[in-house]
Amino acid sequence: MQVIEEEPIRLTRTDDRIRDLLHLLHSLSDLQAAGSLLGWDQMTGGLPEGAGEVRAHQAATIKGLIHEQRTAARLGQLLDELEGVIEHSSFTNTDRGLVRWVRHDYEWATKLPRSLVEEMERASVISYQAWVRARATNDFASFAPHLQRTIAFQREVADHLGYQEHRYDALFDRGNPGMTSRDLERLFAPIRETSMSLLRRIQDSALGIETSFLTGNFAQEQQRALAEQLLGSIGYDFSRGGLALSPHPFTFMGLGAPQDVRLTIRSSDFLPSSMMAALHEGGHALYEQGGDKALVRTPLAHGTSSGFHESQSRLWENVIGRSEPFWHHHYQLVQQALPHPFQQISVQAFSRALNHVQASLIRVEADEVTYNLHIIIRFELEQALLDGTLAVESLPRLWKEKYRSYLGIEPESDANGVLQDVQWVSGFGSFPGLTLGNLYSAQIAHALRQQFADCDERLSRGETTFILTWLREHIHRFGSIYRANELLQHVSGEDANPQYLVTYLTEKFSRLYALL
Amino acid sequence: MQVIEEEPIRLTRTDDRIRDLLHLLHSLSDLQAAGSLLGWDQMTGGLPEGAGEVRAHQAATIKGLIHEQRTAARLGQLLDELEGVIEHSSFTNTDRGLVRWVRHDYEWATKLPRSLVEEMERASVISYQAWVRARATNDFASFAPHLQRTIAFQREVADHLGYQEHRYDALFDRGNPGMTSRDLERLFAPIRETSMSLLRRIQDSALGIETSFLTGNFAQEQQRALAEQLLGSIGYDFSRGGLALSPHPFTFMGLGAPQDVRLTIRSSDFLPSSMMAALHEGGHALYEQGGDKALVRTPLAHGTSSGFHESQSRLWENVIGRSEPFWHHHYQLVQQALPHPFQQISVQAFSRALNHVQASLIRVEADEVTYNLHIIIRFELEQALLDGTLAVESLPRLWKEKYRSYLGIEPESDANGVLQDVQWVSGFGSFPGLTLGNLYSAQIAHALRQQFADCDERLSRGETTFILTWLREHIHRFGSIYRANELLQHVSGEDANPQYLVTYLTEKFSRLYALL
Repeated sequence: MQVIEEEPIRLTRTDDRIRDLLHLLHSLSDLQAAGSLLGWDQMTGGLPEGAGEVRAHQAATIKGLIHEQRTAARLGQLLDELEGVIEHSSFTNTDRGLVRWVRHDYEWATKLPRSLVEEMERASVISYQAWVRARATNDFASFAPHLQRTIAFQREVADHLGYQEHRYDALFDRGNPGMTSRDLERLFAPIRETSMSLLRRIQDSALGIETSFLTGNFAQEQQRALAEQLLGSIGYDFSRGGLALSPHPFTFMGLGAPQDVRLTIRSSDFLPSSMMAALHEGGHALYEQGGDKALVRTPLAHGTSSGFHESQSRLWENVIGRSEPFWHHHYQLVQQALPHPFQQISVQAFSRALNHVQASLIRVEADEVTYNLHIIIRFELEQALLDGTLAVESLPRLWKEKYRSYLGIEPESDANGVLQDVQWVSGFGSFPGLTLGNLYSAQIAHALRQQFADCDERLSRGETTFILTWLREHIHRFGSIYRANELLQHVSGEDANPQYLVTYLTEKFSRLYALL
Repeated sequence: MQVIEEEPIRLTRTDDRIRDLLHLLHSLSDLQAAGSLLGWDQMTGGLPEGAGEVRAHQAATIKGLIHEQRTAARLGQLLDELEGVIEHSSFTNTDRGLVRWVRHDYEWATKLPRSLVEEMERASVISYQAWVRARATNDFASFAPHLQRTIAFQREVADHLGYQEHRYDALFDRGNPGMTSRDLERLFAPIRETSMSLLRRIQDSALGIETSFLTGNFAQEQQRALAEQLLGSIGYDFSRGGLALSPHPFTFMGLGAPQDVRLTIRSSDFLPSSMMAALHEGGHALYEQGGDKALVRTPLAHGTSSGFHESQSRLWENVIGRSEPFWHHHYQLVQQALPHPFQQISVQAFSRALNHVQASLIRVEADEVTYNLHIIIRFELEQALLDGTLAVESLPRLWKEKYRSYLGIEPESDANGVLQDVQWVSGFGSFPGLTLGNLYSAQIAHALRQQFADCDERLSRGETTFILTWLREHIHRFGSIYRANELLQHVSGEDANPQYLVTYLTEKFSRLYALL
């Protein structure tokens, strides 16, 4: 474990090996940026409909070149050489972070046979098509063989990569280095209990929250303008980014961070789909824009793990963006953009509506209390499928049982149940990072409030710069020099601790729903 | 010289060497598409202003990888092998065109050191930004060092490539294989004489043409919609392309032709700046969209030379798009898009206005009579800068002198003078292709009229498909299997001949201005 020092962020470019390493990494970063731009172009409507096939070839070629560069023998040699000397005081923590990051990526890339990677890529395209059809026709059985094949691939991947205890650990380690499923189980247990208990108490309470005004025929241009104003207000730098519309909201982190970090939103009849997505993607984007300039064109320029990235999006979307103080100032933007109906709605009613809790079937539409239950269900099912203790054909039944048990409802169809997410088309291990992000966000927010006792008053006045400055100083500028647990120690003084999220949720929703 | 045969366009993929060659060329084409998309993104406003430097690196890396693939030893071996057997009847003309094209490109690329190519690419991105600023602030001095650097690079390039007589030949041969500056001088001499003489006679004539209605406060969205309608009407396929706004109109040919060919226009108070640019870029785009599908992801998918490309843009912009018959039908689109003032203007007055001749400062807005003088001035200045007979600091002065001498006017500012074109941001040798294009377009139009005696009547009825079909059949589908002179022989029965342009200009403008 690295301890974060207040030394400047600096790569020792005077060392030949570091310079050679950077030469390879710069090229890789540039190539990834070009690949990322292919995605941006497609997602934001630039790609003509008649160019799908030629674009698929282009993307595959770029992907192949990236794989070639990530697994270059010269990269392995440089890592071997540097690892022998990197602890020497002539190297910086930035150097050490770089070597550690590249080793992790190199192992991942070289341990998997290229034939397996290509076979999985091909299978995932077929699997995606099968999933689209299965969801449209509510026909899980037609998707089952593809899921079965994905599970077999994921086991093979884990076996190639190696693991201590569970195959799942090998998969999760990709996006969250050093974390195991045992860690996740321990961290998630109190969150599950609290969420279930809070949900029951809220369902039992007589208090209802009016939300109907959040749905309406809101013009796309108004939603876009509102999103731009909110993003500008929280400190998103448009001179190093851009906003576009796409079918799904997304932050493009690979275009050239911290100098080029773009995001998309979609407009919808349900206003939070654009407005809160802007704050969510904005949180991701602020993290990427905050990386130290010394890290540009290196893999360290990006956020350190999928969980930590999600902590930043959730901090801005939920902890700040669903708090009443934030809206005391910012609600005027909503009222100006959409005078009807919001001139008639009080800020209190508006911010309460954003926090309405309801057991529901669809993860991406869930509130803060139930969201983590959706994730934990998926995590538990992924583990069981990977271990073989759950057969694919029993998955829909168990999905329903778990929804019944955790959320008190169950889907009438698989389309609204086990077939709702795209993730299982290609693999396992991405869901837990989302709850980990919520956990981290509460712990970071606690540290923030320790530092700024007048946090809510400042938010009420429309100030957010003090938060961004603090995040940049303690988290963002480091990119991925340090790992999630190191950053968390640095910023909060302790390891990941679920009690902060438990306390945050309990206090917030007890107050909102007047629970005893 | 290849004679064009009516055999189908077909690559002999059953031959191992052709297949191996295509494997390399497909990868190269994909990489070039990714590089081209970087350009599209920058030109259409996607690239954030803070990302100029990182984008310069990305473009340089992609260019470097392209250079690596273009100069791969395996490519050279395959060319050597194929050249020994390619005349055999088991190969097609398409195969022969491919080998010839790749050999020309390979020679060009292998003669340039990679470091030079990368350095030039980086410099051109920086130079572009300097040019944008210099033009906005009318500050040639701030752009001069970048131009100086470009000239040094261009000399180095020519010296690496080798040439018989002039460095300029080496540069021009890149886009127009087989053509020298001596050829250009010979072809341009009668055009210069005719243009200067026509201009003087028009200036002396008493006849004035009213054009004031072409300038107005036309909404950008209306101009864009009109451009879209005109493009659709001449056969541009939006399902394999797209239209955007940019500071300089441009056709993106490298994105994945014929399946992805996008273009840009700019809007302006002077309607023809958008409307005629749409027809001009549309002509380029039709050429690229017309390539046979068998050529996709090969270099043969694109137009055969810069001059020949320009013949297609000029044919649609000028020969067709500035003819009265074309507007008999299409003027209704203008009147619908911009009722004020065009409901009050007759089609005859409108089409006459589009052909108003006036010595002016801006090349891209010049009429058909003066346009070639703008080009010839640039051609002469490029030759002098490259030879070193003209110093960069004297360029603005000589620019003014030549404008005074050829056109009888001179710019009051460099922004309207020497800083007006984007081309010198990156190199020399592109301008003469534009006048060559005018020359070819007149020759091709003559052949078209031989074929379709009722050409004008059909145009008057709004028909253009017969022209596009004829161009596709005789020119477009071949991509760059054949060279410009071969295509010209095929379509017109003779070599490049400036008399067609001389006759076209003389007849058209004598009639319009009632010259004796």
